[in-house]
Amino acid sequence: MQSNRWLLPEGIQEMVPPESWRLEAARRQLLDLYWRWGYDLIRPPLIEYLDSLLTGAGHELDLQTFKLTDQLNGRMMGVRSDMTTQATRIDAHRLQAVGAARYCYIGSILRTRPEEPGGSRSPLQVGVEKFGDAHIDSDLEIVSLMLETLGLMGIDNACLDLGHVAIYRRLVDHADIPVDLEPQLFDVIQRKSRPDLDSMAANGRIDAQSHARFLQLIELNGEPSVLAQAREALSGIDDEIDAALERLGEMIDLLATHYPQVPLFLDLAELRGYRYKTGLLYAAFAPGLGRELARGGRYDDVGAVFGRPRPATGFSADLNLLAALGRFDPETRRGGIHAPPGSDPELVACVRRLRSAGERVIVATPGANDAAGDDCDRVLEFIDGRWEVRPLETKV
Amino acid sequence: MQSNRWLLPEGIQEMVPPESWRLEAARRQLLDLYWRWGYDLIRPPLIEYLDSLLTGAGHELDLQTFKLTDQLNGRMMGVRSDMTTQATRIDAHRLQAVGAARYCYIGSILRTRPEEPGGSRSPLQVGVEKFGDAHIDSDLEIVSLMLETLGLMGIDNACLDLGHVAIYRRLVDHADIPVDLEPQLFDVIQRKSRPDLDSMAANGRIDAQSHARFLQLIELNGEPSVLAQAREALSGIDDEIDAALERLGEMIDLLATHYPQVPLFLDLAELRGYRYKTGLLYAAFAPGLGRELARGGRYDDVGAVFGRPRPATGFSADLNLLAALGRFDPETRRGGIHAPPGSDPELVACVRRLRSAGERVIVATPGANDAAGDDCDRVLEFIDGRWEVRPLETKV
Repeated sequence: MQSNRWLLPEGIQEMVPPESWRLEAARRQLLDLYWRWGYDLIRPPLIEYLDSLLTGAGHELDLQTFKLTDQLNGRMMGVRSDMTTQATRIDAHRLQAVGAARYCYIGSILRTRPEEPGGSRSPLQVGVEKFGDAHIDSDLEIVSLMLETLGLMGIDNACLDLGHVAIYRRLVDHADIPVDLEPQLFDVIQRKSRPDLDSMAANGRIDAQSHARFLQLIELNGEPSVLAQAREALSGIDDEIDAALERLGEMIDLLATHYPQVPLFLDLAELRGYRYKTGLLYAAFAPGLGRELARGGRYDDVGAVFGRPRPATGFSADLNLLAALGRFDPETRRGGIHAPPGSDPELVACVRRLRSAGERVIVATPGANDAAGDDCDRVLEFIDGRWEVRPLETKV
Repeated sequence: MQSNRWLLPEGIQEMVPPESWRLEAARRQLLDLYWRWGYDLIRPPLIEYLDSLLTGAGHELDLQTFKLTDQLNGRMMGVRSDMTTQATRIDAHRLQAVGAARYCYIGSILRTRPEEPGGSRSPLQVGVEKFGDAHIDSDLEIVSLMLETLGLMGIDNACLDLGHVAIYRRLVDHADIPVDLEPQLFDVIQRKSRPDLDSMAANGRIDAQSHARFLQLIELNGEPSVLAQAREALSGIDDEIDAALERLGEMIDLLATHYPQVPLFLDLAELRGYRYKTGLLYAAFAPGLGRELARGGRYDDVGAVFGRPRPATGFSADLNLLAALGRFDPETRRGGIHAPPGSDPELVACVRRLRSAGERVIVATPGANDAAGDDCDRVLEFIDGRWEVRPLETKV
């Protein structure tokens, strides 16, 4: 027998008390929070046919998705690796709400590989999605819930990164580069690599004007004041870019009004999850952690592949990660009444009554050292002809 | 595009409001119930290496388990198709509690095929396991929690089936049949098929004495009075069989005392999940449904493969099924306050205050027909210089 025979696969966690109860409390408080904001719970399935699971989701999610064969008909299924597209399908196909619709969800997802070294391959994804409204107020609502979520989990020092997909996307269109070159350019922009951009230009793979614009793009990150530089560098190239810069400005103003205490950063070259995003991008970071806490953005009209184009925006996070990092400290479940074993009808009735009243009662089992009994702070004893709850100290 | 392109795979469900909230309420109430009985929450992982997932679980579970390749090292993993063996591993390897230990769990599992035609391939498994105590009181505690679970879900007419694995197992040992014949015999016994038993005897595959005993075994089901017939037919063959009949008698007496209203049946040929069970078996049925609601039993020493043989007993059920069949009717989540959009600081502060007080406040989005707003029974209005909550009827 190998000594590590029972080790879990890399990036796969299990949870035991008290952490499991803490997570359960977080789940309840978060879903109740979303409910108070008008978000209704959906439970997307754990597996779906690849057709629907990956439609509109892009290549990145395809690689991340574990594939299974349906033994009943041979069709390929996948284990969900993200619930956003599932929410889109449910909105478009199942619920078909008229007007704005708000959903929240929580559940385990699986990924073939962690997003970063040492990361999880089975995040407990929690998130909200809002469909049917293109107004910036909906973006603000989503960012607000992202911050409320972090606050509830005891993460008070988060900062926000803002971006907008349209800027990069339109610059690429103007650059008129071959389709197969775009992934390489995307990668270079993500790494903010000036030398690689220079070499692409030197090899004639991007024109001089685009080279200059992309060089500017990867510099356009930092305090919100960067927006002024962005306007100077990129205004007038394209209506969509102008509109994106306008939207970013509005969002910065709204956040400054509603969340003046939250540090705000702009990063016009940050395009995570960009494949199905269409507008504003938002991500929350913790200073010094170098890792995203939550991520969201606008993905208008992704539902078109499900026959229902709608404005859409949302965010999601890994609740396991938030619980590990946050100071969330719910009322702990502990204490209880230790009761002796036996079938005495009065004892049985007393135990039942105490539990119905919300008490935790652990009935000892004859001959077993009752580990759970260690938590108890009281004991049920037969005194003067009746069963009584006494503090554990008085136990003889 | 096929018209059924977005259909879910057979036996795979998704859930939307209000059913999703109903299920969430059931989850909370059940976990709180288990907590009050001293059961501590564990969260087994969604996937594990097959080595640990299927060790001690038997061939049946192997066939039921979806297999995945770990892209990081090529090892085979499986998606959990039952959480009992996971609980055993966690008890043996991770927690190593001394004395009795009680666990509860809830989570989705996956099965390659439904257990019965039209059944689910992704049950929401909920269950409890108790380790470290071989006393019959622990069996009673598990059966009690099984009945409490059904009661909480609004299933009041359940009846109980009792059995004991050792009887069939010892009869097989005495029959001295070849190992490769046993699965066939097992199947015949499960189908209670007299003709097939006769033909096995006629073909000389079981001896005359065993033939007679197995014929008796498949008749030994019905009211608890069947136990007397069982004693007559099977006493004195084997100490373990005698002990099993003794145990069944004790259990019948205990259940008659504690749950006199629950109809009780004995079925000595019922051996579901028998492969890793070792003692008493319990199952709950609803009359007229012909389908198990919950199932459990004793599986002492299964943890030996994880280096820690311990007495163990537990039950599990599919919460989706219980919710579909039961009258469980939690306080519904509805109502709320519809608020107008806008950045007026007083409005924003008022909405925040109301939500902190536990109110559901849905902020309308300009230009969107707010579907969630339809639920609201009150409205936030600016009247006489201040924001006030009014009944929806007074809205102009």
